[in-house]
Amino acid sequence: MISRKQLIEQIKQKKSFLCVGLDTDIEKIPAFLKEYPDPVFEFNKRIIDATQDLCISYKPNAAFYEARGIKGLQSLIDTWKYLPQDCLNIIDAKRGDIGNTSDMYAKAFFNEDASGMSFDAITVSPYMGQDTVNSYLSYPGKWVILLALTSSAGSKDFQYLETNQGFLYETVIQKANTWAGADRMMFVVGATKSTEFTNIRKFAPDNFLLVPGVGAQGGNLEEVCRYGMTKDCGLIVNASRSIIYASNGKDFAEAAGAEALKIQLQMENELEKAGII
Amino acid sequence: MISRKQLIEQIKQKKSFLCVGLDTDIEKIPAFLKEYPDPVFEFNKRIIDATQDLCISYKPNAAFYEARGIKGLQSLIDTWKYLPQDCLNIIDAKRGDIGNTSDMYAKAFFNEDASGMSFDAITVSPYMGQDTVNSYLSYPGKWVILLALTSSAGSKDFQYLETNQGFLYETVIQKANTWAGADRMMFVVGATKSTEFTNIRKFAPDNFLLVPGVGAQGGNLEEVCRYGMTKDCGLIVNASRSIIYASNGKDFAEAAGAEALKIQLQMENELEKAGII
Repeated sequence: MISRKQLIEQIKQKKSFLCVGLDTDIEKIPAFLKEYPDPVFEFNKRIIDATQDLCISYKPNAAFYEARGIKGLQSLIDTWKYLPQDCLNIIDAKRGDIGNTSDMYAKAFFNEDASGMSFDAITVSPYMGQDTVNSYLSYPGKWVILLALTSSAGSKDFQYLETNQGFLYETVIQKANTWAGADRMMFVVGATKSTEFTNIRKFAPDNFLLVPGVGAQGGNLEEVCRYGMTKDCGLIVNASRSIIYASNGKDFAEAAGAEALKIQLQMENELEKAGII
Repeated sequence: MISRKQLIEQIKQKKSFLCVGLDTDIEKIPAFLKEYPDPVFEFNKRIIDATQDLCISYKPNAAFYEARGIKGLQSLIDTWKYLPQDCLNIIDAKRGDIGNTSDMYAKAFFNEDASGMSFDAITVSPYMGQDTVNSYLSYPGKWVILLALTSSAGSKDFQYLETNQGFLYETVIQKANTWAGADRMMFVVGATKSTEFTNIRKFAPDNFLLVPGVGAQGGNLEEVCRYGMTKDCGLIVNASRSIIYASNGKDFAEAAGAEALKIQLQMENELEKAGII
């Protein structure tokens, strides 16, 4: 469990607002790891060891574990157990359902006794409205990170639809901010549209934004900070592939650490420029 | 795998368009099943035995299995293996992500070699647009069942937003029908709004609609058929709790069968009225 206050402290202490995305694909990890009983967990463990001083958050992507059935779920559970307690540990699950089904998803990711895992935060899809988020918010101190604007081509299909209340993604942010405060609600905002951050900050002046797309997806950190940073930082910037697959050899963890360090130094610079540290 | 043609044949043969929702909650199943190594699978097995001549589809709800961690996933895999091949076997997972993540979710539910399961269809959330459905559609013959209109209070938050192209849910249906034909794409349409079916049929004249909410959620079968049925039936009506929890005693499977029979007879009547059988 990590509160908004603790999150901000972590950012200042580590001079970083990096989230390492654990989108671990068994087909892409170094071959020598195949000798281990659970190559995916072994990979994650070493990535975590190499990056934990440089990031304030980890984000395993549920799909990559689910794709491997029982073995994958075991890797996810073991990875969750290994995540540093002082980090914001996000499950990127993009669940979206209501009522008793949503209660069950909350159990799956927030209730260790039931499922073996208890993440600090979950990514959620907003389509079904407020009923979707209530189950997660009923767990004291846990976070909902709601999809708002994504960086893919498909974002134009619906997120940019003009409604009688502005673009759909604007309405999502406005409504969601009536459901919970900035101490429980964050938004996913795609980084390939950094000028959009100015607009988003009109509707979400205080919320932390989870920003994927820096790194492999091509977002620009400086731009994101210029338009999206608040006095409390307000940003968690994710990088997955650029860090975890920085090398495909025996030195993969070292290379991941070096890549994370590069991003952390850029982040330190941005935090200094903004007078946060 | 079940094609549109086979689905229609099944409906005529069984005189039913019932989907049995396997929202199996270990807290709600009869106590005597706790003696079995996997009480949830044992429950599902007996429900399937008692209902398979009366329904044309099964729909396990992923959340209920995920909530129990490894054990739950094993119950889901074993349940999938036990599902009758001639039924449309739907995983109610409401996944919604893009690119390589969506590929992984498709593996999780459509690729037996990878995950141990291969359902015929998956429910999907549309928020991230076309990128969300492509991975699933790349599996020949598999179905996407896209969330359009749901029966919960939260549907008003976004689904009923007026966009410059009509209500959001109308736009979702229209766009999705440009991504795939009615032989691969269905929609979830909540049954508490049966008059809305007239409107939905303007945009989805041929698609099958998956209709939850008959039974425990209070929809009315006759109304749904009056406004939503097509010449090919075009409806799959789901009932979960009203069937699977019809009794909490030793006779639970028998009671589930009796409840399914009651619905099947109503459906037979509707199919006859419409001249389909």
